[in-house]
Amino acid sequence: MGQKVEVGFGAYVADETVIGNNVKIGPHTLILSGSIIRDRCIIGGHCTIGHPPKIDLQKVDFSATSPKVKDLVIKDSATRIGENSIIRSGSAIYKHVMIGKKIRTGHNVLIREHTRIGNNCVIGTQAVLDGYIEIGNKSMIQSQCYIAQSVRIGSGVFIAPGCMFFDNKKIVLGEGLNGATIEDYVRIGGGAKILPGITIGKYALIGAGSVVTRSVASKAIVYGAPAEVKRFQEDREIKNYVNSVMDWQ
Amino acid sequence: MGQKVEVGFGAYVADETVIGNNVKIGPHTLILSGSIIRDRCIIGGHCTIGHPPKIDLQKVDFSATSPKVKDLVIKDSATRIGENSIIRSGSAIYKHVMIGKKIRTGHNVLIREHTRIGNNCVIGTQAVLDGYIEIGNKSMIQSQCYIAQSVRIGSGVFIAPGCMFFDNKKIVLGEGLNGATIEDYVRIGGGAKILPGITIGKYALIGAGSVVTRSVASKAIVYGAPAEVKRFQEDREIKNYVNSVMDWQ
Amino acid sequence: MGQKVEVGFGAYVADETVIGNNVKIGPHTLILSGSIIRDRCIIGGHCTIGHPPKIDLQKVDFSATSPKVKDLVIKDSATRIGENSIIRSGSAIYKHVMIGKKIRTGHNVLIREHTRIGNNCVIGTQAVLDGYIEIGNKSMIQSQCYIAQSVRIGSGVFIAPGCMFFDNKKIVLGEGLNGATIEDYVRIGGGAKILPGITIGKYALIGAGSVVTRSVASKAIVYGAPAEVKRFQEDREIKNYVNSVMDWQ
Repeated sequence: MGQKVEVGFGAYVADETVIGNNVKIGPHTLILSGSIIRDRCIIGGHCTIGHPPKIDLQKVDFSATSPKVKDLVIKDSATRIGENSIIRSGSAIYKHVMIGKKIRTGHNVLIREHTRIGNNCVIGTQAVLDGYIEIGNKSMIQSQCYIAQSVRIGSGVFIAPGCMFFDNKKIVLGEGLNGATIEDYVRIGGGAKILPGITIGKYALIGAGSVVTRSVASKAIVYGAPAEVKRFQEDREIKNYVNSVMDWQ
Repeated sequence: MGQKVEVGFGAYVADETVIGNNVKIGPHTLILSGSIIRDRCIIGGHCTIGHPPKIDLQKVDFSATSPKVKDLVIKDSATRIGENSIIRSGSAIYKHVMIGKKIRTGHNVLIREHTRIGNNCVIGTQAVLDGYIEIGNKSMIQSQCYIAQSVRIGSGVFIAPGCMFFDNKKIVLGEGLNGATIEDYVRIGGGAKILPGITIGKYALIGAGSVVTRSVASKAIVYGAPAEVKRFQEDREIKNYVNSVMDWQ
Repeated sequence: MGQKVEVGFGAYVADETVIGNNVKIGPHTLILSGSIIRDRCIIGGHCTIGHPPKIDLQKVDFSATSPKVKDLVIKDSATRIGENSIIRSGSAIYKHVMIGKKIRTGHNVLIREHTRIGNNCVIGTQAVLDGYIEIGNKSMIQSQCYIAQSVRIGSGVFIAPGCMFFDNKKIVLGEGLNGATIEDYVRIGGGAKILPGITIGKYALIGAGSVVTRSVASKAIVYGAPAEVKRFQEDREIKNYVNSVMDWQ
């Protein structure tokens, strides 16, 4: 336990944890064993950090043995949260999770086992990261998004509220785990649905409410249900967006 | 109170409850009067079991007197959770609820009054079951789904994340409560919207992102907005799905 | 602290609060400083009332200086909840919020800073009101809706479950905050998406699952993706809806 740690009313901090300096832990929050929370983090009230993974509760986790997620498995069972991060109230973060510096979440966020998130990301209120997921740096996943297992998201990606990524094309149990790949600097408008197995190329822009059923070429603007290419972005438009990500604090 | 019951830090268990053997109750969870939790259940932290129904809080519940839900009313005010079930953190389950054996929920699930769920079902994170609902056995309702009042869901049904079922066609207050009927072994892709009053026939498959405005024939594959029939499934395809449900643990 | 206030197991009430008579505060709920809760309110368990705003946690809030929300800023930092309101379990309500009489919320609702809500409104389970928002009287925002910053919603508006309102047309950071304006007595079907900057005229009706990309004329019925005008409502239809709102308790 670091120096100047504030532990709120009714909070619980297990013994086998590492808590940095100047960390604030909100009321009624549970910091379970194996949690490693770095300096100056703020954890809101009613959170659970270090939640046990599915395999501990149900004795089985078929996802863990799928070849599609082999590279996404995090063997270390710790829950690591980098310095200067803010986790808002009601959020649950599992074991086998690595989160970089300066993440900021909304409320009631769920981040399940085998999720790796880079630095300076935002995860919005009620977003569900369902495990076996990789997210780069400076990406925003806004409120009420659903990210299925085996989805990979690059850096500088902007995902507006209510977007959903699915992993199971045939909707047959046990044939899932084929989530989309989202390359760097992609922008996705609100409420878009991204079907399994596709790739959205670098800098592409997806319109709000689209249903994206096929892979999208780099720099394309697509929208509709099913989404179709409307045009390709000019370098000026892309630069405008990339600069806005660079400037972003 | 059964044998070997574990009650977590800051949890509350009311007197008028039945708790089976080997039950685990998570930290800060509230088990209110009238809860009946059978052997070997695991209730996560920050849950509320036995939440009072609308009529207790607001003194009125117009739904209760609608002829459309007469058969769905559960007179017994208990909250019954069958053996070997797992309720994950932050979930709220109301009184007048009957849940079978081996249910597994995600986090922050809401199950309101007059909901009946069979055995071996999954209810995903943030799914809302808004009361006066019936669900069969071995059905999966995945994360962030919304199930309106008066919806009936059969057995072996697979509902992918973010699907929504509505109950009020004219969007006039007091003229609602006409939810859809989903027959056995139906599969519904992610983010689909099911309008009021329709029936989705046995084995039908609804594509992701569809808006289903009319009833769907048995075995049909439909998608789009509005959803249209693309073809009918062959017996082989149906058998493949049914077998996957049978094998499912 | 008023008379006959009930404070639940494990709840916390800060000193600098005003609690009216006959208020009930649920177990494990946090009433933080600056909360003003009027007579006969019921606050469920696991709630946070008076949550600190973004500027307190992150030292910066770009929204606050946007000219688009100048009229929506609430200088008073209090969290005001009018008499006879019901806030259900797991909800978080920020500072700089003014809520009228007889509001009823579902569970896990989020109401962020600089939100003003009139009397007799309903805010459904998991609805997210993301701040800098104005809502009139007798409006219903049902479960799982997302209301972006700078959205203005009139009186007698009915918004079915899962509707989403966005604020950022170009999906460029810092160019957001251009939410829609929803005039009085508008009805919006489930899962509709309302794009930034548009106005939905008085009495208009939006079909379920629509993607509304342009402003909608008063009394129009629109649906589809993108939504198109199908016809205009007759006075009889409008009167039927308006009367249902008047009758609504």
